[in-house]
Amino acid sequence: MLTEQLKTILEQVKSGDINISRALEKLRVLPFEDLGFAHIDHHRQIRCGLAEVIYCPGKTTEQIIEIFSKLAAKGNNVLATRVDRDVFEALAETKKFPQARYESQARAIVLEQKKIEPSKAAILIVTAGTADLPVAAEAKVTAELMGQRTELICDVGVAGLHRLLGYTEKLQKANVIIVIAGMEGALASVVGGLVSCPVIAVPTSIGTGASFGGIAALLTMLNSCATGVTVVNIDNGFSAAVTAALINRKIEQKV
Amino acid sequence: MLTEQLKTILEQVKSGDINISRALEKLRVLPFEDLGFAHIDHHRQIRCGLAEVIYCPGKTTEQIIEIFSKLAAKGNNVLATRVDRDVFEALAETKKFPQARYESQARAIVLEQKKIEPSKAAILIVTAGTADLPVAAEAKVTAELMGQRTELICDVGVAGLHRLLGYTEKLQKANVIIVIAGMEGALASVVGGLVSCPVIAVPTSIGTGASFGGIAALLTMLNSCATGVTVVNIDNGFSAAVTAALINRKIEQKV
Amino acid sequence: MLTEQLKTILEQVKSGDINISRALEKLRVLPFEDLGFAHIDHHRQIRCGLAEVIYCPGKTTEQIIEIFSKLAAKGNNVLATRVDRDVFEALAETKKFPQARYESQARAIVLEQKKIEPSKAAILIVTAGTADLPVAAEAKVTAELMGQRTELICDVGVAGLHRLLGYTEKLQKANVIIVIAGMEGALASVVGGLVSCPVIAVPTSIGTGASFGGIAALLTMLNSCATGVTVVNIDNGFSAAVTAALINRKIEQKV
Amino acid sequence: MLTEQLKTILEQVKSGDINISRALEKLRVLPFEDLGFAHIDHHRQIRCGLAEVIYCPGKTTEQIIEIFSKLAAKGNNVLATRVDRDVFEALAETKKFPQARYESQARAIVLEQKKIEPSKAAILIVTAGTADLPVAAEAKVTAELMGQRTELICDVGVAGLHRLLGYTEKLQKANVIIVIAGMEGALASVVGGLVSCPVIAVPTSIGTGASFGGIAALLTMLNSCATGVTVVNIDNGFSAAVTAALINRKIEQKV
Amino acid sequence: MLTEQLKTILEQVKSGDINISRALEKLRVLPFEDLGFAHIDHHRQIRCGLAEVIYCPGKTTEQIIEIFSKLAAKGNNVLATRVDRDVFEALAETKKFPQARYESQARAIVLEQKKIEPSKAAILIVTAGTADLPVAAEAKVTAELMGQRTELICDVGVAGLHRLLGYTEKLQKANVIIVIAGMEGALASVVGGLVSCPVIAVPTSIGTGASFGGIAALLTMLNSCATGVTVVNIDNGFSAAVTAALINRKIEQKV
Amino acid sequence: MLTEQLKTILEQVKSGDINISRALEKLRVLPFEDLGFAHIDHHRQIRCGLAEVIYCPGKTTEQIIEIFSKLAAKGNNVLATRVDRDVFEALAETKKFPQARYESQARAIVLEQKKIEPSKAAILIVTAGTADLPVAAEAKVTAELMGQRTELICDVGVAGLHRLLGYTEKLQKANVIIVIAGMEGALASVVGGLVSCPVIAVPTSIGTGASFGGIAALLTMLNSCATGVTVVNIDNGFSAAVTAALINRKIEQKV
Amino acid sequence: MLTEQLKTILEQVKSGDINISRALEKLRVLPFEDLGFAHIDHHRQIRCGLAEVIYCPGKTTEQIIEIFSKLAAKGNNVLATRVDRDVFEALAETKKFPQARYESQARAIVLEQKKIEPSKAAILIVTAGTADLPVAAEAKVTAELMGQRTELICDVGVAGLHRLLGYTEKLQKANVIIVIAGMEGALASVVGGLVSCPVIAVPTSIGTGASFGGIAALLTMLNSCATGVTVVNIDNGFSAAVTAALINRKIEQKV
Amino acid sequence: MLTEQLKTILEQVKSGDINISRALEKLRVLPFEDLGFAHIDHHRQIRCGLAEVIYCPGKTTEQIIEIFSKLAAKGNNVLATRVDRDVFEALAETKKFPQARYESQARAIVLEQKKIEPSKAAILIVTAGTADLPVAAEAKVTAELMGQRTELICDVGVAGLHRLLGYTEKLQKANVIIVIAGMEGALASVVGGLVSCPVIAVPTSIGTGASFGGIAALLTMLNSCATGVTVVNIDNGFSAAVTAALINRKIEQKV
Repeated sequence: MLTEQLKTILEQVKSGDINISRALEKLRVLPFEDLGFAHIDHHRQIRCGLAEVIYCPGKTTEQIIEIFSKLAAKGNNVLATRVDRDVFEALAETKKFPQARYESQARAIVLEQKKIEPSKAAILIVTAGTADLPVAAEAKVTAELMGQRTELICDVGVAGLHRLLGYTEKLQKANVIIVIAGMEGALASVVGGLVSCPVIAVPTSIGTGASFGGIAALLTMLNSCATGVTVVNIDNGFSAAVTAALINRKIEQKV
Repeated sequence: MLTEQLKTILEQVKSGDINISRALEKLRVLPFEDLGFAHIDHHRQIRCGLAEVIYCPGKTTEQIIEIFSKLAAKGNNVLATRVDRDVFEALAETKKFPQARYESQARAIVLEQKKIEPSKAAILIVTAGTADLPVAAEAKVTAELMGQRTELICDVGVAGLHRLLGYTEKLQKANVIIVIAGMEGALASVVGGLVSCPVIAVPTSIGTGASFGGIAALLTMLNSCATGVTVVNIDNGFSAAVTAALINRKIEQKV
Repeated sequence: MLTEQLKTILEQVKSGDINISRALEKLRVLPFEDLGFAHIDHHRQIRCGLAEVIYCPGKTTEQIIEIFSKLAAKGNNVLATRVDRDVFEALAETKKFPQARYESQARAIVLEQKKIEPSKAAILIVTAGTADLPVAAEAKVTAELMGQRTELICDVGVAGLHRLLGYTEKLQKANVIIVIAGMEGALASVVGGLVSCPVIAVPTSIGTGASFGGIAALLTMLNSCATGVTVVNIDNGFSAAVTAALINRKIEQKV
Repeated sequence: MLTEQLKTILEQVKSGDINISRALEKLRVLPFEDLGFAHIDHHRQIRCGLAEVIYCPGKTTEQIIEIFSKLAAKGNNVLATRVDRDVFEALAETKKFPQARYESQARAIVLEQKKIEPSKAAILIVTAGTADLPVAAEAKVTAELMGQRTELICDVGVAGLHRLLGYTEKLQKANVIIVIAGMEGALASVVGGLVSCPVIAVPTSIGTGASFGGIAALLTMLNSCATGVTVVNIDNGFSAAVTAALINRKIEQKV
Repeated sequence: MLTEQLKTILEQVKSGDINISRALEKLRVLPFEDLGFAHIDHHRQIRCGLAEVIYCPGKTTEQIIEIFSKLAAKGNNVLATRVDRDVFEALAETKKFPQARYESQARAIVLEQKKIEPSKAAILIVTAGTADLPVAAEAKVTAELMGQRTELICDVGVAGLHRLLGYTEKLQKANVIIVIAGMEGALASVVGGLVSCPVIAVPTSIGTGASFGGIAALLTMLNSCATGVTVVNIDNGFSAAVTAALINRKIEQKV
Repeated sequence: MLTEQLKTILEQVKSGDINISRALEKLRVLPFEDLGFAHIDHHRQIRCGLAEVIYCPGKTTEQIIEIFSKLAAKGNNVLATRVDRDVFEALAETKKFPQARYESQARAIVLEQKKIEPSKAAILIVTAGTADLPVAAEAKVTAELMGQRTELICDVGVAGLHRLLGYTEKLQKANVIIVIAGMEGALASVVGGLVSCPVIAVPTSIGTGASFGGIAALLTMLNSCATGVTVVNIDNGFSAAVTAALINRKIEQKV
Repeated sequence: MLTEQLKTILEQVKSGDINISRALEKLRVLPFEDLGFAHIDHHRQIRCGLAEVIYCPGKTTEQIIEIFSKLAAKGNNVLATRVDRDVFEALAETKKFPQARYESQARAIVLEQKKIEPSKAAILIVTAGTADLPVAAEAKVTAELMGQRTELICDVGVAGLHRLLGYTEKLQKANVIIVIAGMEGALASVVGGLVSCPVIAVPTSIGTGASFGGIAALLTMLNSCATGVTVVNIDNGFSAAVTAALINRKIEQKV
Repeated sequence: MLTEQLKTILEQVKSGDINISRALEKLRVLPFEDLGFAHIDHHRQIRCGLAEVIYCPGKTTEQIIEIFSKLAAKGNNVLATRVDRDVFEALAETKKFPQARYESQARAIVLEQKKIEPSKAAILIVTAGTADLPVAAEAKVTAELMGQRTELICDVGVAGLHRLLGYTEKLQKANVIIVIAGMEGALASVVGGLVSCPVIAVPTSIGTGASFGGIAALLTMLNSCATGVTVVNIDNGFSAAVTAALINRKIEQKV
C-alpha cells in the first residue's frame, strides 16, 4: 500500500510531472484528516476491514458527533463505544443517520452502512456470570460489525462446573473463544484446558473487596496454567472481539 | 449422586430401554436450567442444603426477579444478597412471594418456604465495632437460612480488651466463630489465641486513610500468628456464614 | 479452665490458706515460662492438643534449640517449621532427642513423644502442581502431629480438568479439604464447586511474572465464587493443617 | 474424542462385553498416568499437537527426569522450560535420550522424536532490545516444536523508530506477530498500529527502578490503544508461542 | 486500678461477704455498658482524661445519638468525629444537650460538660497548605477537649521555605509539634530537622494523580530522614492530637 | 536578592540607623503576607516571572476569592487552577476583576493585568488523543501566562504512527516539547526518539481497567527508553508548562 | 542558638570588629564540616543530646571510617547503625577507638566517650516474638546512648494474650512504650488499649507470604483503633528509640 | 536530515542516476547497522551529540564487547552503563581501546575518542546523602561525555537544612539542577522552591522498609508542590544527565 504510493510519487518525479519539493510535500501527505481536536484515520478502515471506532470517554458530545459525522460521510460503518444514551439521542436529533442504533447493554452506537457478509464459523463468547453480560455485549456488537457471527454461552462459572462441561463439544469445535469473567476469573484457565484453539480472556470489574475492580481476575488470567490463553484489559470486550475477528478472518481467508 | 445417575443410564443402555445416542444426550443433560442470561443450578440446593443464592451486583432488577421466581418455583428457600430495597419492592409488586422479606441492615431478600430445623450449637458472630454490623447481619441471615442458630457479640475491638475478655468462656465453648473487623483487624488474632475452634475472619471496608477499603484488615488477618484462623474476602459475611454452617453441620452430623 | 484456676484461688483465700497479696500474685502467675528471649506457652498444648510450634525464621540456632529443649522436657510433641537441615543437625548433636526427625520436603523438625491416635477420616490435601509439594508436606506433617490421617492428591490443576474429575467422589466424601495451588490458583474454586465440605485454600508462591510471589493465587482464592472456601496466607501449609485438624476433631468429637 | 470413548464404553455395555461396574470404572479411567508427585497427561499431546511441557521451577532434578522419561517413552516430543543446564546434564548422564539438546539462551531442554513438518508462514518474533532475547529464544524453541517456522527481528524499540519502520512490509504480511519488550513496552502498541493481524505482546522483566520487574511493560501492553493486541504474562515466551502456533495452524488448516 | 478491684473482691471473699460464685461473677463484670450494638467504655474516661470518642463513619444517626446520650449522661465531655452537620441537627432536635456545638471545619460534635484547665505550653499544629486545614481543625478540637492549648501555623509548605523559617524559634521552643501535609509531605522532615522535640506527622489526602489519596505523603513521612518523627494514619488529625496531648500532659505532670 | 537584603540591614546596623534587636526583627521579616489560612508569597512573582498560582482543590470559595484579591491587588497576573465555573462566577460577582476570564476546558481562572511579551519560539504541546485536551488546555493557559507562545498538535497517538510522523520536522525544530498521553502513554517514548530537545511527559488519567487512573501511563513514561524524557505527575499540565517555560526562557535569555 | 550567633555577628559589625563582607561570609558559615562526600553536622549533637548517627547502608567502609573518625575527634558519642561486623573490624584495625564496641544483634557500632547519666524512668520495649529481637536491640542501643534506661519485655504477641496481660501494671506505669511486632502487628493496638502513655509502634519485616516484608504490620499499626499510637518505618528501631528518648527527656526535664 | 536524504534520492531518480526500484530500496535503507542481536544506531550520535549508549543489563559480555567495538570503530565516544568491572576487563583484554576507562562508582565504561569542548555553565548535581553518590557519579560521567561541566554538592538532605541553605546563591545561579535523593526524597521540593531554573529529580533506591526501593522518593518527587520539578526513573542518573545536557546546550546555543 505504502509501497504503491511511494512508487507513484517516484514515477511522477521521474517523468517530471511533479517537481521535487511537490514530491516532498506529497510524501508527507498521509490519508488522515484533521478536525482540530482529532485526527480521523480513514486509512484504518482499509487496513482492518473495520471503521474507525470512537472511544468516547473524555470526549464531549459535540466532539463525538463531529467525528461520527466525518467518518460516516465516507460511507463506512461506524462504532462508538462506552457512550451514554443521551449522546445517541443528540446524534439522533441531527437526523443525519437514521440507521444508527443504540445498543444499550453494550453502551455502543452502531451505524451499519455497508452490508457485511457473515463469517462461516461463529466466535464463541463465554461468560462466568450474568453480571458479565455488558462486556459480552460490547464484544458481540464489535465482532458483528467486523462480519463475525457470534454465539453466547453465559453464566457457566467454575463454581458449577457441570454447567460448563455441558458445552464441551461446542467449545472444542470453535476457531477462537472469548472468555469473560470477573471475581476470581478462573473460567479462562478451565476453558483453556479443554480446547486447542486460542482463548482470549477478558477480566471484568465485577466483584467486591479484594477483587480490586478486576485486578484479581486479570492476574488469574495472566497466570493461567492453561496454554493458548492471552489477555486483554479489564472490561475490554471491544479489544477481545477485534482480536478474535482478526484471527477468524485469517482462518476463513477473508483477509 | 453422579455415580447414581451414571449407573441408571448404563442400566437403561444395557436393558435396551434407551439407545446409545439417547444415552449420550442424557449424559450431557445436567440438572441446570437456562434462562438465556443465567444458568440456574437447582442441584446446588440438594448438595449444600441451601438454595442458590443470587449475588445481585451487576444484575438488572428484571434479571433478579426472573431468577428469583424460577428458584422459588421449586419450593426452595431463596436468598438474594447485596440488593437494594427498591429491587425488593419491585419483587413485592409481583405479589408472587408474600412471605419474602427484606433485611435492610444485611441488604438481603429472604424467602423461607421450607421450615429449617435450627442447629443445637450457635455460630458466634463477633464484631470489633458498631460499623461492622451490616457485614454481621449478612452473615446472620445467611447462617440462619442454612439452619444455624447464631449469637452476636458486637463492639469488642482490641483497643478495649476487657470488653472482649468478658466473653472468654462463651468463646471457648463455640464450635466455630466468625470474627468481623475493619480498621486494623486485630480482633481475629486475639480471638484465635483464646480459643481452640476454627475462626473465620472477615475483614471489613470500615476505616479511612491507609485502611485501603479493607486491605489493611485483610492483611492483618492473613498474617495472623494465631492458629485456626482462615480468611474470606473483604465484607464477605455471606461466605463466612456458609463455611461456618458447613462446619457446624458436619459437627452436628446433619450432613 | 481459667474459671477452675480462679475458683481454686478464691477457695484458698476463703479458707485462709493463702493471704490476699499471695492470691494477687497467683492471679498474675500464668502457665507460661520465660526464657529471656521467648515466652514458652505450655498451656497451649493443653488447649489445642498440639505442642507449641516453633516458627523458626528470625530465630538463631541457639534460640531454637533452647526453646525446643524446654518444650520437649515436658514430654510433649514438638514441631519446628521453616527450618533448615543444619539446625536439625545441631539439635541432633546434643543427643538429647534421638527420636526427633527432619522432614526435608516440609523443612520441619518433628518430635513425637506421645502416641497420637489417628483420626477416622483423613484430611484431603490436593495440589495443583508438583511444585506445590513442599507446602503440602508442611500441611501433612502438621496435621499428622495433631492426630489426623491425611491423603494427598497432587498435580490435578484446572488446565487438565479430567485429572481432577477422576477424584470427584473421594472429594465429595471428605470432611475437610486443603487445596494448595500457585500460579492462578483456580483449583480452589473448582474444588469448592464440587463439594459441600469446608475447603481451606493455600496460595503458593509458585509462578513467575505477574504471579507476584503468590499474590495472584491469593486474590483468586479470596475472590472465589464457590462457597465454603476460606483462605490462609501464602505458602502457609501449617496454618491450613491446624484449621483442618480443628474442624475434623470437632466432627469426630475428639475435642 | 471424549464422545468417542463414551460411545465405545456404552456399546460394550450394550453388547454385554463389560458389566456396569466395570463400565463405571472405565469411565473414571482417564488417559493420564500417576507418578505419585505428578499426573502426566498424554492426552494433551493428542489434543494440541504438542507434547506435555514440563514447567520446571519448583521441581527437583529427580522429578524432572522422571516426568521427562515417562513422556519420552511414548515417543512424543518433549519440552522442558525454565531449566538450568545442570538438570540437562543429569538427564544426559542417564544416556536414555541422546537426541535431547539444551537450548541455553532459552533455558530449555528439547527432545524431538517425531519429525514435525514446518508451517508455510513464519511467526514473526519482534524484540525491543538485545536484553529481551532470552524470552524470544523461549518463544522460538516452543513454536518450532509445534511445527512453526519463526523469524526474528530484534532490537527495534520505539526510541529509534526508523529501525522498526524498515520492516513495515514484512510485519504487514505476517499471520501473527509476537512482540517482546521490557522497560516501557511501547513496541506492542506501535506494531499493533502498523498491522492487521493478531499481535501477542510479551512484557519482559528487563528494566530498573519503576519498571517493577515487568509490571510497567505489562500495564503498557494491557492499555494499548492499538487493536488486535493481547497480552501474556511477564517473560512468558512459551505461552505467546503456543498461542501464536495455535493461530497459525488454524490458518494453515493443519488442525 | 484493676489491682484495687481484685483486692476488694478478694477481701469480700475472705470476709465471707460474698460467696465464691458471686465473686466469679463480679470478676467478670467490667466497667462497660452494653447498648446492643455498641459497648460503651466509661472506664476509658478515667484512664485517658478524655471522654469516649464516637468515630461516626458506618454508624447510623440513631446509633450515634444513643451512644452520645449514654456517654453524656455520666457528665463527661463527649467528642463525635467525622460526622455530618445533619447528625448534629438531629441531636439538637432532642434538646438534651444545649451546650453541644458543631465544629464544621473539623466535622465534629463537641460537648464540654466539665471545665478543662488548659495546659501551660501549647501544642503547635503546622500545615503545609490551606487545604490541610480540615485535618488541622480536627486535631485542634481534639487537643482542646483534652485540656491542651493549641497554636496554628498554616500554609508554610517547603516550596516556600522562607515562610517556614520565619517560625524557627517558635518551633524550637515547643514540647511537641503536629505537622500536617498532603501532596509530597516533605514538611515533616524539614520541621523534624529544625527541632529537638517529638514531631507527629499527619499525611493528608490532599493532592492529585500519583499522590494516591495521601499514600505519597504517608510514605514520605515514614521514610523521613529526620529523627523524632512518628506518623499516624492519613487525615487522622484526631489520633495525632491525642498522642500530642498524652505527651504534653506527661511533661506538665498532669498525669 | 537575599544577599542584598542582608547587606542593607548590616549597613544600617553599622551606621547605627537601627539597633541590634531591630535588626534581628528585620532579619526575620520575609516578603510574605499572612491571611490567617494562607501565606501569600509575593516574592515568588519576582523570582519566577509568574504570579502565585492558586491550586484550588480543598480551598473554599471564600478562601480562593480572598487569596485571589490579595494577589491581584499588587497588579500581578493571577492564575487559579482546578477550579469550577461557580467559583469564577462568585469572583465575577465581586465586580473587582472585570478582566478575569474563565477557561473552561482548562478549568482555570486567568487574570492578565500585566502585558506579557510572547516568546520567539513556541512550546509544542502534543497529545495522544482528543480526551487528553483538558490537560493540554491547562498547560497552554499556564505557559501563555508565563509569556510563552504555544502550538498544539493533538490526537497523534502511536496506534496510527503516520499521523505523528507527518509532524516530524516541526518536532525536530522545537526548543522543548510537552507530550500528553493517557492509556499506555507510549507517545512520549516515540517523540523522545525522534527529537533532541527535552521532552516533558504528562501521563493522563484517561483510560479504563488496568490504566489505574494514569498509573500505567506514568510507569510507561518513567521507563521510557528514549533519552531526554522527564515526567510530571498525572494530569499535571500546569507543572509541565512551568518547566517548559523555565527552559524556553533560559534559552531565549529572558531570565 | 541561631539568635545568639546572629547577635554576636551583628555586634561585631556594629563595633567595627568585622566589616560587612566578612559578616556576610560569617553568616554563611554554619557549624558543619565538609568531607567531600558527606557533610558532618556537629551542631546536631548540641541540639539533640546525641552524636550524629551514621546510617551505613550505601556507604563504603572507607567512608564510614572517615565519618566516624571526624565525629569521634570532637569527643562526642558516636553510633553507626545497620553495619556489618567487618566494618567494625576495619575500624578496630585503625586502633584509634579502643572503647568502640560492636553490638551484633543490633548490628551497630557504639562509641561512648562521654559519660551519660541514665534517666529515672525506663523506656519499655515490648516485642511480639523472638524474631523481633534485632529491631529491639537497635532501639535499646540507641536509647541508651541518649541516656535512657530501657526494659525489655519480649515474646508477648497477641495470640497468647495471657503472656502480655501479666505485664499490665508495668505497662500502665510507663512514660513511653515502644512496641515491636511483625506478622500481623496487632500487639500495638492491644498495648495501646491498655495504657495512657504514648506508644511508638515499629512494624518489622518478620513474616512470610502476604506480610510483604512488613507492610501488613505497618498497615495494621497505622490503622490502629487504639489512641496514642504513632508509627515509624519498618524495622526502624533507631527512630522509635530517638522519639521515645525525646519524649522521656522532656518529661524528666532534662531538655 | 531525513528531508535531506529524501531530497537526494528524489534528485537521483529525477536525473535517472538510479531507477525506481533502487530508489525504493534506498528509501528503506536507514542509517542503522544490524549485528543479529542488536541494531546499532549511528544516526543517534549525529542527532544528539552523544554516542549510542550501551545499557548493559541483560546483555552478555560478548554482546557488549561486539556492540562497543562497532560503535567505537566510527570514532565516536562510547558510554556503557550499569556494567560490572569484569566486563571492562574482558574489553581491556581485547587491547583494542586503550583509552577506555572504567568508572567504578558510576559502574560505567567510558571511551572518549573525540575531544569535547566543555560547557560554560556547570550542571549542578545535588545529593541528599552519601549513599546517593553512585547515582550522582552516573549522572556526572554522562553529562561530561556530552560536553557539560558538572559541580557536585553532596549530603545536603533536608533534615539538616542549614547545610543546604549555605549553597543558596550557587543554586540560584544555575541553568539546570539535578537533585538526587532516596529515603523520603524531599530535597527536590526544597531545592525547587529556592530556584527558578528547571530541576530534574532522581529518586534513588536508598532506604529501607517502606521506601520500597525508591518508590517513596519517586512519589514524593512526582507530587512536589514546587514548580519546575520533573522526574526520571529510580536511580536513573544517566537519563537526568542527558536531559540536563540537552537543556544546557540549548541555552548555550550549541545545538
